[in-house]
Amino acid sequence: MNELGRIGETPRGGLTRLALTDDDRRARDQMVAWMREAGLRVTVDRMGNIFGERPGAAALPPVMMGSHVDSVPTGGKYDGQLGVLCGLEVIRALNDGTVRTRHPVTLVIFTNEEGARFQPAMIASGVMAGKIALEDAYNARDKDGIRLVDELERIGYLGAEPCVPRPFRAYLELHIEQGPYLEEEGLSVGVVEGIVAISWSRLTIYGVQDHAGPTPMRIRHDALVAAADVVSGVRRIAKELGGDTVTTVGSLTVSPNIVNAIPGRVALSIDMRDPWSEKLDRAMPMLDGVVAEACQREGVRYELEHYWRVPRTPFTPDVVATIERAAKAASARSRRILSGAGHDAQYMAAIGPTGMIFVPSRDGRSHCEEELTPLDDIEYGANTLLGAALELAERA
Amino acid sequence: MNELGRIGETPRGGLTRLALTDDDRRARDQMVAWMREAGLRVTVDRMGNIFGERPGAAALPPVMMGSHVDSVPTGGKYDGQLGVLCGLEVIRALNDGTVRTRHPVTLVIFTNEEGARFQPAMIASGVMAGKIALEDAYNARDKDGIRLVDELERIGYLGAEPCVPRPFRAYLELHIEQGPYLEEEGLSVGVVEGIVAISWSRLTIYGVQDHAGPTPMRIRHDALVAAADVVSGVRRIAKELGGDTVTTVGSLTVSPNIVNAIPGRVALSIDMRDPWSEKLDRAMPMLDGVVAEACQREGVRYELEHYWRVPRTPFTPDVVATIERAAKAASARSRRILSGAGHDAQYMAAIGPTGMIFVPSRDGRSHCEEELTPLDDIEYGANTLLGAALELAERA
Repeated sequence: MNELGRIGETPRGGLTRLALTDDDRRARDQMVAWMREAGLRVTVDRMGNIFGERPGAAALPPVMMGSHVDSVPTGGKYDGQLGVLCGLEVIRALNDGTVRTRHPVTLVIFTNEEGARFQPAMIASGVMAGKIALEDAYNARDKDGIRLVDELERIGYLGAEPCVPRPFRAYLELHIEQGPYLEEEGLSVGVVEGIVAISWSRLTIYGVQDHAGPTPMRIRHDALVAAADVVSGVRRIAKELGGDTVTTVGSLTVSPNIVNAIPGRVALSIDMRDPWSEKLDRAMPMLDGVVAEACQREGVRYELEHYWRVPRTPFTPDVVATIERAAKAASARSRRILSGAGHDAQYMAAIGPTGMIFVPSRDGRSHCEEELTPLDDIEYGANTLLGAALELAERA
Repeated sequence: MNELGRIGETPRGGLTRLALTDDDRRARDQMVAWMREAGLRVTVDRMGNIFGERPGAAALPPVMMGSHVDSVPTGGKYDGQLGVLCGLEVIRALNDGTVRTRHPVTLVIFTNEEGARFQPAMIASGVMAGKIALEDAYNARDKDGIRLVDELERIGYLGAEPCVPRPFRAYLELHIEQGPYLEEEGLSVGVVEGIVAISWSRLTIYGVQDHAGPTPMRIRHDALVAAADVVSGVRRIAKELGGDTVTTVGSLTVSPNIVNAIPGRVALSIDMRDPWSEKLDRAMPMLDGVVAEACQREGVRYELEHYWRVPRTPFTPDVVATIERAAKAASARSRRILSGAGHDAQYMAAIGPTGMIFVPSRDGRSHCEEELTPLDDIEYGANTLLGAALELAERA
């Protein structure tokens, strides 16, 4: 954890390792080196997803374990990294015990899970699951206009294997909870039953850029004043819907963004989630209303686009039950839980048996430098992963 | 106007020519070339202010005319440029008429008037007036951390002349109004009596950065939600105070600024102005209250700094009267007016007789690509400038 975490480490001990940057390449190189040391056969597909296979006794589909090594800006050292390294540790444990399994066991590292640099998030598992066209993924651009495919090639991870659905016995992903529940309840392991429904929208507000001094209030059309109303309104949607609905404006960019100019343009993002897709169906028109009202009040034009929507993803009951048994066998205090965050497991669930293992996040915090999971909990989580993988891969 | 406006021109016909960039250098070089063609003796001071002197018959302080050639990002071609070029045109007219004046007539171009790249605005006239220490100005940094003095040197405009108060008969600045009044009233010229009181504040809000998915609403401390409340509250201050008070949040920057992270930090600017300093005195505690309340509601920490404040600046009654006479003599429809924007004239008024001439802004718009002043109005303005300069410089 520490060694991999030094690549892209921030001064305050967090991690900034955006997808397909030089630091991402260095982290990938390090992982590939460790995977080869552990005897894995490493291949890379056309989306830069890395696979390391430990052969099985029979010609059967593998049990796959994995996560990602990219991070958000000023993120933490547990999100992504932990799942990949626990997967590697499981393989080392199998090696140490010279355990032969019927199914191969494969470690996978997915490209650009976070969506911090290239949108949408989980783009590479999305392509693999056939939900995102390879060409669209290749043409995704970061904020400097650089294409994903060009960066894949530049860092040497534009692989030859096709990025298509492949047969697998099961996909298992260990990940930090990123919420407060496990810690609050004194549990070490969450047996994840599925992922909440998620909707992403983008809004651009066009005001009238003008001088902040000589322009009387009566003739102003301030894009930021309208945007502020939208931010407050988005918060209000969660309050009105109650329950587990969460709503967030995470990104907001002002133009020209100087002290003495009335903002002429504001672009912002809206992220809304709920365990139930039907509740998001109710949230969407509320958002439309909030935006229309705020922009009408200020007399500004806008474009609102609901560009990404995933329904609630249930994981495979058999796999969930296997993980629950493994947690029990590892003496981990656990309970079933739903994931509030998207993960590559979401797309993997569309093409094969899938489940996830959560470990606690201190204060429920993640996507920040303060991410922390106690080592004891990590051990319970890793042992649960080992147990589940072994049961699914079957001793030969 | 067109030729100078091509340097830093935007695709939509506006101007992005930030202070001390390569484009600013090219605009300065062009102006210096034209000034020399017009027979002026050109010197540069330690803040990069450019002076071009047309000698007078007697050894008397000069009548100075000027403005600036830097712009805001995606600004227009009239703000700054127009005043400098009308000053040059006045000198050419004096040359064409082989007019000898008792006082010298000097064209001046001030550095970094806009404050878009280096804060505060009007930094170079501020140093000249002794209101800003040269060392502080030199150490001003742009958002990439580059120092003003290093850029002055890089573009070749770190001059040898001391930047200190110098005697002048009068300082005259022609500028676009940047407000709607002249156009609304069908006037060509505004005789500027002074500049409103201005206050600039900066606010940083520290929330708790976290994942936008698994973090329940009840444990959130979202810096952007608090900032949105502040933006709405700043707008409300102008409404409550009424009259001519204007309040603006022009700049707002979110960190980490991605779709799926709860904003951990927001920095924003507050610009408040009123013709009467006493009214700003009432606005300041209202702002303190808006910020304290918004941040308390969201449970976030903040730092609020009122870092720049100028009282109402009255211009010199004699100079204002001279401009009024000149406007009348030029048959310009005019009225007295107050400037809502800061100008270098503000600092010049502290060290010598000063006045300004406004020409209309279409739809009251400025600091935007759509800036426009009809050519007829420009002619009335330039003739008013010529008349006033000639009266103050006195025919020899």
